[in-house]
Amino acid sequence: MHSQLALIERYREYLPITDATPIISLGEGNTPLVKAVNLHRLIGASGMKLYFKLEGLNPTGSFKDRGMTLAISKAVEAGARGVICASTGNTSASAAAFAAKAGLKCYVILPAGHVALGKLAQAILYGAKVIPIEGNFDRALELVREIADDCQVTIVNSINPYRLEGQKTGAFEIIEALGQAPEYFCIPVGNAGNISAYRRGFKQWWQSGKIAKAPMMFGFEAEGAAAIVQGKPIANPETFATAIRIGNPASWQEAELAANESGGLIDSVTDDEILHAYKLLAESEGIFCEPSSAASVAGLIKQLKAGSVLPDALVTCVLTGNGLKDPDSALKSSQVDLTPVKAEAKQLVKAMGL
Amino acid sequence: MHSQLALIERYREYLPITDATPIISLGEGNTPLVKAVNLHRLIGASGMKLYFKLEGLNPTGSFKDRGMTLAISKAVEAGARGVICASTGNTSASAAAFAAKAGLKCYVILPAGHVALGKLAQAILYGAKVIPIEGNFDRALELVREIADDCQVTIVNSINPYRLEGQKTGAFEIIEALGQAPEYFCIPVGNAGNISAYRRGFKQWWQSGKIAKAPMMFGFEAEGAAAIVQGKPIANPETFATAIRIGNPASWQEAELAANESGGLIDSVTDDEILHAYKLLAESEGIFCEPSSAASVAGLIKQLKAGSVLPDALVTCVLTGNGLKDPDSALKSSQVDLTPVKAEAKQLVKAMGL
Repeated sequence: MHSQLALIERYREYLPITDATPIISLGEGNTPLVKAVNLHRLIGASGMKLYFKLEGLNPTGSFKDRGMTLAISKAVEAGARGVICASTGNTSASAAAFAAKAGLKCYVILPAGHVALGKLAQAILYGAKVIPIEGNFDRALELVREIADDCQVTIVNSINPYRLEGQKTGAFEIIEALGQAPEYFCIPVGNAGNISAYRRGFKQWWQSGKIAKAPMMFGFEAEGAAAIVQGKPIANPETFATAIRIGNPASWQEAELAANESGGLIDSVTDDEILHAYKLLAESEGIFCEPSSAASVAGLIKQLKAGSVLPDALVTCVLTGNGLKDPDSALKSSQVDLTPVKAEAKQLVKAMGL
Repeated sequence: MHSQLALIERYREYLPITDATPIISLGEGNTPLVKAVNLHRLIGASGMKLYFKLEGLNPTGSFKDRGMTLAISKAVEAGARGVICASTGNTSASAAAFAAKAGLKCYVILPAGHVALGKLAQAILYGAKVIPIEGNFDRALELVREIADDCQVTIVNSINPYRLEGQKTGAFEIIEALGQAPEYFCIPVGNAGNISAYRRGFKQWWQSGKIAKAPMMFGFEAEGAAAIVQGKPIANPETFATAIRIGNPASWQEAELAANESGGLIDSVTDDEILHAYKLLAESEGIFCEPSSAASVAGLIKQLKAGSVLPDALVTCVLTGNGLKDPDSALKSSQVDLTPVKAEAKQLVKAMGL
């Protein structure tokens, strides 16, 4: 059965693997591409063919698994003693899970001030060694780079070149599901690796003649962390969409090129716009994504209003992570009256508003 | 692409739907079946072919989506004004999500004493109306039954006959992935609907000649909620595996029949055994499931020791829910030292234990 092949096995001819590469898989990829039935009408584009790529249904709950399966497989092939990353969130969860299956030690280094236990629950349960340091995130990443070689541990932060190569498979799956590329492709931009990876995927299959046209790439930063849009690093990025709260994106250049050469753009959306899209996805399509994921839909709404996206187009929005990663945002963004009612039929029907 | 067809569309010939049934889909089903690479060796069965069915990768994070897609589709077909359920957990999340996509109101009724906001975050964000009542769970379900007809709302608790019909598709997917049925099939038992549904699926494809042999069905209750094993309802069920903390299973008879006629059994596992399996899955296979899901693996270990499962067999364990539904259990079950270390290479390497 198609879906039971490991992701990098399925696309091996497009990836840097050989028969000698041991494939470490958790059932990643092959995520649903779901068609909107309500949301496009609610944003004034009833003729739009709008699809959501549900990357939160990957094994550890985010798109990171696509790149991590390749990064960890290559680390095993290279004979690494373990893997290491500086991360407070989705990267650490993904790294720890694949390392567990591979039988490698996993070290997660993070700034002592940013230890949110809920976000680390996955890495901890998978058995990673989590080490807070007395310094900020940049210092954590610096230390990771400093010690990796000597310790024979492979860095699996996004500077690992295999991460983006694995992530480009998302583009292949979208093309296979639609039978063509979408006209417009919308995606959140934080570290800017994902938009770069999808561009690689679309470009590769366009150049090999599998699609007639590659999509216009639209990337959306959060306004409080919009380094690329503002043309300069942001010292203290701030946004409700924590997974894209990054002030100096690692893949800045490649992301800008992806947008420019495809005829798209990189823009920003406000926290209010992200929150609105986040709730709209849940209430009108039954999709619960991470707040940051909703930046793709918030951006689509903005570009539609601006006339940069045509209302009857074929559009794909990537929803990068699972809303279950951040239940607090769901509760904070909803007002709900939980006053108990009497356990009687009449009272209940009244409370239901019927 | 195979995986982009709605679940009940894919298996329509085996399900009670017609051309008039509007199909409400969130991308449910088609979940990975992942082969163990470490765990079987750690439990003394290195020759075992052991597979995990990752039902937590369904859109709302649990197996409930398989039945809910059918229940909500049929509710729309019947012209319901809304849907209603008594639930504190996975059922409410699934009902609320599918109802949102269908444009139906969803009412979630629950005992006032059992409002755990984290567990309700999904239902609330999807826009369900959550109503606590001054009474226990049984009273909530009683009220739901009392008012449903008059209010023209469809009950989507497990008494809804379409729920189990939809859930049996899990058996079809396992058969397709393996090219045959497993010899042993292990699954947690709470309300006992899921083991009953899988038995229907295996039996249906066995009777239609698609498989030569149906698997032996092994169901596992938590010891503190083991009504079927003890042969009597449990007044105050207690277990760490909250999703199977049920004292009087709705599908009791069908579940017993499933075990008996397939040559399997229903047994119980202790909270310690469940916790051990839960951690083993994470640490050795990189799988983060709900605590209750791990009852299937805890049971497998117990039956292997008892000689009821042969060590070189073909086995499938269903992992019913996503671990992200319950991050607290992950944190509580792990001991971790988060004392910060100096931001210096030497200190870090020492902390890593290298």
